[in-house]
Amino acid sequence: MKFVTAEYAGEVFVGVINEAETKVLPLNHASVKKSGSREFPENLIDCIALGDSLIQKVHNLLDYAAAHEDLFIPVEAVKLMAPIPKPSKNIFCVGKNYAEHAIEMGSKDDIPEHVMVFTKAPTTVIGHKDTVLNHREVTAQLDYEGELAIIIGRTGKGIKKEEALNYIFGYTIVNDITARDLQTRHKQFFIGKSLDTTCPMGPWIVHKSTVGNPNKLHIQTTVNGEVRQNSNTENIIFSVEDIITTLSQGMTLEPGDIIATGTPAGVGKGFKPPRFLQSGDRVEVTIENIGTLSNQIEI
Amino acid sequence: MKFVTAEYAGEVFVGVINEAETKVLPLNHASVKKSGSREFPENLIDCIALGDSLIQKVHNLLDYAAAHEDLFIPVEAVKLMAPIPKPSKNIFCVGKNYAEHAIEMGSKDDIPEHVMVFTKAPTTVIGHKDTVLNHREVTAQLDYEGELAIIIGRTGKGIKKEEALNYIFGYTIVNDITARDLQTRHKQFFIGKSLDTTCPMGPWIVHKSTVGNPNKLHIQTTVNGEVRQNSNTENIIFSVEDIITTLSQGMTLEPGDIIATGTPAGVGKGFKPPRFLQSGDRVEVTIENIGTLSNQIEI
Repeated sequence: MKFVTAEYAGEVFVGVINEAETKVLPLNHASVKKSGSREFPENLIDCIALGDSLIQKVHNLLDYAAAHEDLFIPVEAVKLMAPIPKPSKNIFCVGKNYAEHAIEMGSKDDIPEHVMVFTKAPTTVIGHKDTVLNHREVTAQLDYEGELAIIIGRTGKGIKKEEALNYIFGYTIVNDITARDLQTRHKQFFIGKSLDTTCPMGPWIVHKSTVGNPNKLHIQTTVNGEVRQNSNTENIIFSVEDIITTLSQGMTLEPGDIIATGTPAGVGKGFKPPRFLQSGDRVEVTIENIGTLSNQIEI
Repeated sequence: MKFVTAEYAGEVFVGVINEAETKVLPLNHASVKKSGSREFPENLIDCIALGDSLIQKVHNLLDYAAAHEDLFIPVEAVKLMAPIPKPSKNIFCVGKNYAEHAIEMGSKDDIPEHVMVFTKAPTTVIGHKDTVLNHREVTAQLDYEGELAIIIGRTGKGIKKEEALNYIFGYTIVNDITARDLQTRHKQFFIGKSLDTTCPMGPWIVHKSTVGNPNKLHIQTTVNGEVRQNSNTENIIFSVEDIITTLSQGMTLEPGDIIATGTPAGVGKGFKPPRFLQSGDRVEVTIENIGTLSNQIEI
């Protein structure tokens, strides 16, 4: 089940997209037809907070909609937004979680012994096919980082490793675009990670039931069609479970929290000479069982 | 003018507290009496977003209330909460912004050449007199950091230094409580800065019109009455204007954003041997023209 936030005829709505990715079912519009009432919260964070009952309600709605084809909107007719266009806190990001990426950013000494976490401001978030500003006035070193992102489904604190997957709602893709010069200059990563539009996210959130093991997913990033990052989440140093366990020690995780799990080797800065993003470049991140997130840099 | 978020008879409301800090005027409750309608948004972030019209509306309400003493609630009867109990993004924090603090944390080499920014999760926020969890299971090095915090009043990006103060709504106090062992272990500061309840904030937001120059305010932190930090914001390396200018280069600031401006020398880690917070300790941060924020560590 793939959840989207989309715009159609001036209205922003939460919906699900079908397996073939050809048509979208707007949840509340369909539920009004089915039962006369808007059965779903108006934004995806609040839907996620419903827990398992959301999935049951959507299944019931899909059963009804199967006999009412007119409830679906063709995907070409909607504007897909980031699935969570306005996160209620910064995006959590794990740094240097693939050993080869840590090495390309410096040396073997950069491979972390403990989970390293920084954040991106919510104002960075854009959707699939949205344009990334080139930020020419503030950086000359814009770089891509394709990443698997976890979407938290339940409130939790002090979560045990063996329980960690139960706190996940689903997964999406983020491109943790980074201004390398700012990242270096300001030491703590936040500033270099938080320029407007530098967190493309989507195209959708896939419910965990159809993703399988999050620690074994192929991940690939291309720039203008050329493969730059090509790895598998089985190479992450700190597993999805490790990340949730560490973050939740003393800090409460909440439904809708977004955790980017780190990027593989192959970022622009890792090439000699570096290959930073240029105006007009198209970056695509593909993750197995999730989809492809595609964005162009402003010309 | 001092804005509070408070709870009374089970209802959370936005209000203003009088000069003598003895009584609170709940804005919407009073406006209903005055005009028959709830004239104010229900949370302080949305009030702040009204801009200058908020101040005019509150002045009008105070004129009316001057003749209606029964509209005020004695401050002892309300529960003051953090003025912004649920920030809409992480709290921005400037690191090592007082030279002597940078030195006590390491050496002169730690004095930053550029603004260093990390964040605290919104789940860290508590109010004046709320209890800070001792987090005994996850840290043995809980430390205090008294700080002046800026509250942003207007949306802005690429803000010029000479315009920066115009983007401020007002000021409050935060205690940027830090788990030093986690801060060191996880390298990027976020994890050590984001344990639940480690961002006491308040007791109120003072409108900028009555604070004066934010770069010249006495700041003092005591632990169990003993002075530990005693400085003036004139000692900050990067001024309030510098911070706003740097942060807004490429990143949009929004009404209600909270920026902690850094802490002076005198933190527990700076003593030899270190003097970390213990269960039952009371930490009080006082800033000139703002007030005193007092919190006790869980016993």
